[in-house]
Amino acid sequence: MARLYHVPLSPFCRKVRLTLAEKRIEVELVEERYWERDPDFLRRNPAGKVPVLKIDGLTLAESGAICEYLDETRPEPRLVPEAPAARAEMRRLVGWFDDAFHHEVTTRLLYERVNKKVMKQGYPDSRNVKSGAQRIKFHLDYMHHLLDHRRWLAGDALTLADFAAAAHLSALDYISDVDWHRSEVVKDWYAKIKSRPAFRGILSDQVPGFPPPVHYADLDF
Amino acid sequence: MARLYHVPLSPFCRKVRLTLAEKRIEVELVEERYWERDPDFLRRNPAGKVPVLKIDGLTLAESGAICEYLDETRPEPRLVPEAPAARAEMRRLVGWFDDAFHHEVTTRLLYERVNKKVMKQGYPDSRNVKSGAQRIKFHLDYMHHLLDHRRWLAGDALTLADFAAAAHLSALDYISDVDWHRSEVVKDWYAKIKSRPAFRGILSDQVPGFPPPVHYADLDF
Repeated sequence: MARLYHVPLSPFCRKVRLTLAEKRIEVELVEERYWERDPDFLRRNPAGKVPVLKIDGLTLAESGAICEYLDETRPEPRLVPEAPAARAEMRRLVGWFDDAFHHEVTTRLLYERVNKKVMKQGYPDSRNVKSGAQRIKFHLDYMHHLLDHRRWLAGDALTLADFAAAAHLSALDYISDVDWHRSEVVKDWYAKIKSRPAFRGILSDQVPGFPPPVHYADLDF
Repeated sequence: MARLYHVPLSPFCRKVRLTLAEKRIEVELVEERYWERDPDFLRRNPAGKVPVLKIDGLTLAESGAICEYLDETRPEPRLVPEAPAARAEMRRLVGWFDDAFHHEVTTRLLYERVNKKVMKQGYPDSRNVKSGAQRIKFHLDYMHHLLDHRRWLAGDALTLADFAAAAHLSALDYISDVDWHRSEVVKDWYAKIKSRPAFRGILSDQVPGFPPPVHYADLDF
């Protein structure tokens, strides 16, 4: 069976978990406290980061590489479009969330509020939290702009871009940092993706010391 | 003709330029002072970043999306391997350089020393410069480890992983921040990639106020 080394609230791990679940690939989840830099784990991934997926006799690292590998080897259902232009648009948006959104929002909210405590790295920096809370508005508005004329973020079909976005937003929703009142179309999109069977695992996550709010797992939030 | 909005020392733009040149795609280069946030440019890429490539009637953003698009639509010569496991290894390494190397080394050396001056954002932070100069050693050692048993970074063939690494190292070499004495195999790899016709454009770059050292364009450095 495949084995995923992960941490529950990591958006990169969540993107891989959603992809595995959508493709009905059975996987054993192993929590990896990667910041403790266990030598065995560093052999698996010298970058010292999660996710790391063991599958098909391979050890894969980097969430983008893992998800595209899964789509190439298990094409049902397709999460990467066929046409080059549509693939480029999907990859642009995966980059948008995993790079820009991650650095401007996720690191400033989730990492300040949760990771620092779990990793014993001190207290949240309130300037970062403030700037993350400000910046998420721009990103929700951009999603609104996209979803206003598209069914899914990259076009008419569900793709890895939706999973990338939902991975970040679901992790932030776990700590109540998403204002779902800001855009009705973004909320509808999240309701649609949240109700997929692939989302169940993520909705049942529990991080010790950080109980999720009631609305987190509620499909009618 | 294709048009690339870029800045000369950006490793992400250099990766795209190398890919275009290797595939002999003619392109018009337009320098874009993206930090001035020109509204026309923001329409092209709401992320406000370079590179942006106009080609085939499309406007593409995010260097990874652009390079894979070029390989899918102009497969000669191939820069993305065919086999899923080899593709995953290539994408892992592109991620390694464009994420880990970028944040640990490039931003701390190139951005501190050059971008801050060009963008009028103050003086280099010497702690960052020191930590970047320390951290590049780990990355050169990791490249040595890979190249000790592989012809190219991701395996036996030249791939986007080599261009990603060479894009970062060439930009740092422009400001003399790479110690080529650290590893003979890394130096040999760079000499090999530097002598490709695709590298010529990058070796003739000139940034006002930052003349390159003599060895920068020298194939026998």
